[in-house]
Amino acid sequence: VTPVSQHPLDPRPRRDETSWIRFLADLWGPSGAEVGVGDDCAVLPPDRYALSTDVLAEGVDFHRGWAPPEALGHKALAANLSDLAACGASPRFLFLTLGIPRDLEDAWVEGLARGMRDLAAREGLGLAGGDLSASASGLFLSLTVLGSQESAPLLRSGGRPGDLLFVGGPLGGARAGLGLFLGGRSLVEFSQKNQGRDEDGLMHRFFSPPTQTALGRFLASEGLATCAMDISDGLAADLRKLGASSNCGAEVDLLTLPLEPGLQDLAPAGETAHRCALRGGEDQVLLFAAAPAAARRMMETPCPVFPVGRLTPPEEGFTLLLSDGKRVELELGGYDHFAP
Amino acid sequence: VTPVSQHPLDPRPRRDETSWIRFLADLWGPSGAEVGVGDDCAVLPPDRYALSTDVLAEGVDFHRGWAPPEALGHKALAANLSDLAACGASPRFLFLTLGIPRDLEDAWVEGLARGMRDLAAREGLGLAGGDLSASASGLFLSLTVLGSQESAPLLRSGGRPGDLLFVGGPLGGARAGLGLFLGGRSLVEFSQKNQGRDEDGLMHRFFSPPTQTALGRFLASEGLATCAMDISDGLAADLRKLGASSNCGAEVDLLTLPLEPGLQDLAPAGETAHRCALRGGEDQVLLFAAAPAAARRMMETPCPVFPVGRLTPPEEGFTLLLSDGKRVELELGGYDHFAP
Repeated sequence: VTPVSQHPLDPRPRRDETSWIRFLADLWGPSGAEVGVGDDCAVLPPDRYALSTDVLAEGVDFHRGWAPPEALGHKALAANLSDLAACGASPRFLFLTLGIPRDLEDAWVEGLARGMRDLAAREGLGLAGGDLSASASGLFLSLTVLGSQESAPLLRSGGRPGDLLFVGGPLGGARAGLGLFLGGRSLVEFSQKNQGRDEDGLMHRFFSPPTQTALGRFLASEGLATCAMDISDGLAADLRKLGASSNCGAEVDLLTLPLEPGLQDLAPAGETAHRCALRGGEDQVLLFAAAPAAARRMMETPCPVFPVGRLTPPEEGFTLLLSDGKRVELELGGYDHFAP
Repeated sequence: VTPVSQHPLDPRPRRDETSWIRFLADLWGPSGAEVGVGDDCAVLPPDRYALSTDVLAEGVDFHRGWAPPEALGHKALAANLSDLAACGASPRFLFLTLGIPRDLEDAWVEGLARGMRDLAAREGLGLAGGDLSASASGLFLSLTVLGSQESAPLLRSGGRPGDLLFVGGPLGGARAGLGLFLGGRSLVEFSQKNQGRDEDGLMHRFFSPPTQTALGRFLASEGLATCAMDISDGLAADLRKLGASSNCGAEVDLLTLPLEPGLQDLAPAGETAHRCALRGGEDQVLLFAAAPAAARRMMETPCPVFPVGRLTPPEEGFTLLLSDGKRVELELGGYDHFAP
C-alpha cells in the first residue's frame, strides 16, 4: 500500500494508480502471460483465443447498496465467463478496467477485486492487464476475458429444425433476485456457495450464476451441440437470437421449463415464476441445441442440463407450448439497454 | 437503421442495441476474425498476441464540447494503437465498448464510430466485438486492441546505463492543445491530416497523435531498442517508469528536446514550451533507448526520431541538463487519475 493521494477534506489516505496496480497484481499473483501487468501491452502465449468483453455500469446494471462489493466483482466476472463457456473455451486471461468515482472508498474497490479474484482463482483466470480511471459519476467495470479455444467453437448458428433445446441450469432466479433488490431488500453478506431456497438464496443467485465452463468445454469437445449461447437477456429474447442465427424457429415447452428452487413461492409482485423463467434476464446459463440422437448423452454432462423445447422450421416462428397443449406466441420481454 | 426505441418526449427515432451492432459491423466490414461480431465471443486466428486496453471517461479525459465526435473516436483508438506500437506489435483486432448516456444523440455516436473507423482502416484493425451499455451519466469508451507480436516484444525493462534515449515525435503539443480547450476554445471541424502550426493545429494534435506503428515494428524487428514505452503521462513521469523498469536513472538534455511546431508561440498561460514538452501528458509517441552503437541506424527509422538524453546508473536519479551545463532534478508532473 502506497498512500500518496489524499483529498483535503478526507483524512483517510487513498491509493494512487501505482498502488492500485500493485494491489491487483499481488492479489492475483502470476498470470501466465509472457508479459503481464506493468508494461504497455500484455503479450500472450501463442494460441487460438476466444475473447469476450462485457461492461457493467452503476445505476444501469446495479446499485452499490444492493450487496457487498465482493458480490459485484463476482457477478461481473461470471457474466464474462458465461460467454467463454458459450463458445466452449477454457478461461485463461482477464483484463480489468475500472472507472472509480471519487466518493467510493478504497476498501469497497478492494472488496470488489477480491470477489472477482476468488472466482478467477477457481476458474484458472490470470490477471494480465487492464486500465484504471477516475469516473466523473458512477462506477463502471469493463472486463475482457480470453480463453483457449481448443475445440471448434460453439456458435449461435448451426442449429437445425428438430434439434432439442437444453439449458444448463434452472431459470428465473436472477430476475427474482433483482425483484427483491428493486423492492428495497439487500444482501448483508455474500458467499460464493450460497444456494439457499429463500430470499437470501435468490439474491445470491442474481450475483452468482452457476459455472458453465465445464459444460461448454464438454459440449464443444464432444461435438454435441449444434448451436449455443448464454442466456443474458431472458430465454424468450435470447432464443429468438439463437433461432435467427440458425435460421430456425423454436418451441418452448412450459411443462419442462426448469424453475429456480424457491422461485414459485418467492416470485416478485406482479410476476409469476414462469414469467421470470421465460423473460427474466441475467440467468447466465447455457442455452444450446442438440440433435435428437444425442439426447441420451445429456446424462453425461458435467452439470445437469434441462430440456426446454426444440428448434422448428423458421416459418413456425417462436411459440410456447402450454400445459393444455395449446400453442401461443413466445412473448419477447428481454432487456434492451436503449429502450426508453 | 432499425429505429425501434423512442423516448416519449423525444420525437426522433433512436437506434436500439441490435441496430447499433449492425451499424458498427457494417461500418467496419469484415474483421479477419474466425468468429466476429454477433456471437458470444470472438474467436481469433491462432497467433501470439499483444493486447492493450484503455478507457476514456467524459468529464475526466475529455469534454464533449471540445471537438466533433470524430476527433474523440480518433483519439481513443490512437491511444490504444500507441500501446501496441510500444511493444512493436502489428494492429489486428479492436473490441469496442461504449457506455452511452441517454441524452447523447445517435448522430454523435455515429460520428465517434466513423472517426475511429477511419483510423482503424488506415491501420488494418478489424472490429471483432465489444459491448454496448447505457450510462447513467457521462459517456465512456473502453477499447481493447490486439496486435500480432511477430518479433520479440519491446519492453520497459532491458535498458542499460549509457543507452541513448529517443522519442518518436515532437513533444508538448497535446498539452498545449488541452490548454486551449481548458481556456474555452474548441475545434469546429476535425481532419485526420491537420498538422498546422497554429492554435487549430495544436488542438488537432491533442486528438490526433502521429502514428507510431511502423516505428515500433521497425525497432522490434531490427532489435534496435533496449527498452521502450509510449509517453502518455508526460516525458518526465514516464521516463521515471521506464528507468524504474530498467533499473536505471536518466538524464534529459533540454537543448535537444524536440518541441511541437508552433508550441513556443502558443504555450498556454502559465506554461512554457519546455514545460509542456517535459510534463505535458498524452503525447502518445514512443520513448525508447538504444545502445550508442545503434545511434547511426536511427537515420533509417520510418519516421523521424529525436534524441532526448541518455540512461544513467540508477544512483544518479532523474536529471535535466540545462543549456548552461547545470543539472537539476527532473521534476515530476505527470497525471495521476486518483490525485485529489
